[in-house]
Amino acid sequence: MTVGRPDEAGLIARFFRPLATAPGAALLLDDAATVPADGGRELVVTTDAIVAGIHFFPDDPPDAIARKALRVNLSDIAAKGAAPAGYLVTLALPQDWTTDWLEGFVDGLAADQEEFGVSLLGGDTVRTPGPLWVSVTALGHAQEGHVPRRSGGAPGQRLYVTGTIGDAALGLRLRRDERLALRWDLRRAEKELLLDRYLLPEPRLGLSRIVAAYATAAMDVSDGLAGDAGKLAAASRCGAVIDAARVPVSRAVARAVEHDEAALAAALTGGDDYELLLAIDPGDAPAFEFEAAATGIAVTDIGALVEGGGIEIDRQGRPLDLGRGSFTHF
Amino acid sequence: MTVGRPDEAGLIARFFRPLATAPGAALLLDDAATVPADGGRELVVTTDAIVAGIHFFPDDPPDAIARKALRVNLSDIAAKGAAPAGYLVTLALPQDWTTDWLEGFVDGLAADQEEFGVSLLGGDTVRTPGPLWVSVTALGHAQEGHVPRRSGGAPGQRLYVTGTIGDAALGLRLRRDERLALRWDLRRAEKELLLDRYLLPEPRLGLSRIVAAYATAAMDVSDGLAGDAGKLAAASRCGAVIDAARVPVSRAVARAVEHDEAALAAALTGGDDYELLLAIDPGDAPAFEFEAAATGIAVTDIGALVEGGGIEIDRQGRPLDLGRGSFTHF
Repeated sequence: MTVGRPDEAGLIARFFRPLATAPGAALLLDDAATVPADGGRELVVTTDAIVAGIHFFPDDPPDAIARKALRVNLSDIAAKGAAPAGYLVTLALPQDWTTDWLEGFVDGLAADQEEFGVSLLGGDTVRTPGPLWVSVTALGHAQEGHVPRRSGGAPGQRLYVTGTIGDAALGLRLRRDERLALRWDLRRAEKELLLDRYLLPEPRLGLSRIVAAYATAAMDVSDGLAGDAGKLAAASRCGAVIDAARVPVSRAVARAVEHDEAALAAALTGGDDYELLLAIDPGDAPAFEFEAAATGIAVTDIGALVEGGGIEIDRQGRPLDLGRGSFTHF
Repeated sequence: MTVGRPDEAGLIARFFRPLATAPGAALLLDDAATVPADGGRELVVTTDAIVAGIHFFPDDPPDAIARKALRVNLSDIAAKGAAPAGYLVTLALPQDWTTDWLEGFVDGLAADQEEFGVSLLGGDTVRTPGPLWVSVTALGHAQEGHVPRRSGGAPGQRLYVTGTIGDAALGLRLRRDERLALRWDLRRAEKELLLDRYLLPEPRLGLSRIVAAYATAAMDVSDGLAGDAGKLAAASRCGAVIDAARVPVSRAVARAVEHDEAALAAALTGGDDYELLLAIDPGDAPAFEFEAAATGIAVTDIGALVEGGGIEIDRQGRPLDLGRGSFTHF
């Protein structure tokens, strides 16, 4: 970082927050904005871009690049308890693009449109002298008053996450250094799982309805569980305590952690999980768990919001020191 | 262009159109998509990106870059007869960005938010190893059934444009070659006007309500009047005849054309006008002109939609040969 320049959060706070005058912009502190619609509905809108060499590897398969660009946005739609309504995509192509590459890209979008029931609404194609990038804006429909914000949590509420945490973060490390597979003693299928989870996030749209019904606060975990739980707690003006032993991990991550203590910190602070982090009132927890079970998406109680501030992740009764705490793509 | 690779229109048709399954996507043949809202409204949504070195000069003032990125999208909102509801912006910053630059960028957005009554709703900031780029998605509200499509025109309807045509195209040429100011014998103020019109388009939002009320077909002129009129005519399954003498031009463009025949073709086929092109039923023309006059935005009858196909621009009774016809940024 250049001296005197803020990080991404500081940059947004200092430069862009003053522009977010609409109430639905939530001061740019949330995963998505809302626009009031008639008939008791709200439109949820979010945008995220991915750049070759920053958010994905230039030699990733084109269908995976397309799907990742779409899915990181659909993940925000799921986190706000909304049903996806469509998306727009802007694709910037470098000079050496090929029709083969573009066919793969479009095939990826087509597959995900089928899987998630969305349509392309519009977009733009531009040339760029720099690396390829993709910017997606996703729209979703939500019921008015049922869009859980990051700020809706309160002390005493339980914290849940979907799926498993840390796969993508370790997958990224594996991608950069294949020798880690040996160090972590991974089976071939475990290695593939971690690599796949980095390549292709899984937006938890199957849980949208239940998020809308039960979550008092929600966000998707894109910058690491520790940092993102800290963001949700801060937005809710409280603290969070997470029990590391309860954080759901895949067999692959568990094996990596057995052989490499640093893998635990990487799993808890690395990015690209795209799982949901939800605050649930303890009285609602049984019904929430019961309804979530029917979706086939695992939800796990990992801790609670507490009075005070900050995020503490305990392991065997002692707070873990996770260093910087949060991953940032910026 | 590399052999075998389609141009932008061909690329959209071949690769992206099959993905546009929602009716509101209008097969990606329009300036914006619509999403049905309740209460007799439609949400209009559009996205356009600008890349340094392609759509603007890297040394353009940062406030002008920000405003251009926003305005090219607001222009699409105006073309669909909608009132702007807000926008999202993704900004990709190269390594050497400075807080001074970003302050200028944000000041530009703030000024336009004030001018056009919109709020930032959300966005993304990313790093890029390539040139700076800005992607904006704009949202607007329209009355159901009052979103003029490119395809709504019919033979016999009049064609109108707002403002003046060709300023930005000549401004771009001046920017690239200052000696043209001498060749075109431009006064200092005329030169400044052309440069400004390239730098800062003027979205015609003041005309939105009247566009919604009267236009049978509409689009914004971003890729040159000749080519864009051809697109509107083709979408409406008819042809268009435009009288070059009636196309409204600034004193600066008129002077350039006096001294340089090539300037006329540049004005009629160059891009970046961001004026509106509207088809109006002849019976509605007087009321349309009367109501438009009250907005202070000039509207000029330049020709008509006709049976058949293609676009013809006549000068002194003879069709002009404009060469390639349409400018494309791609």
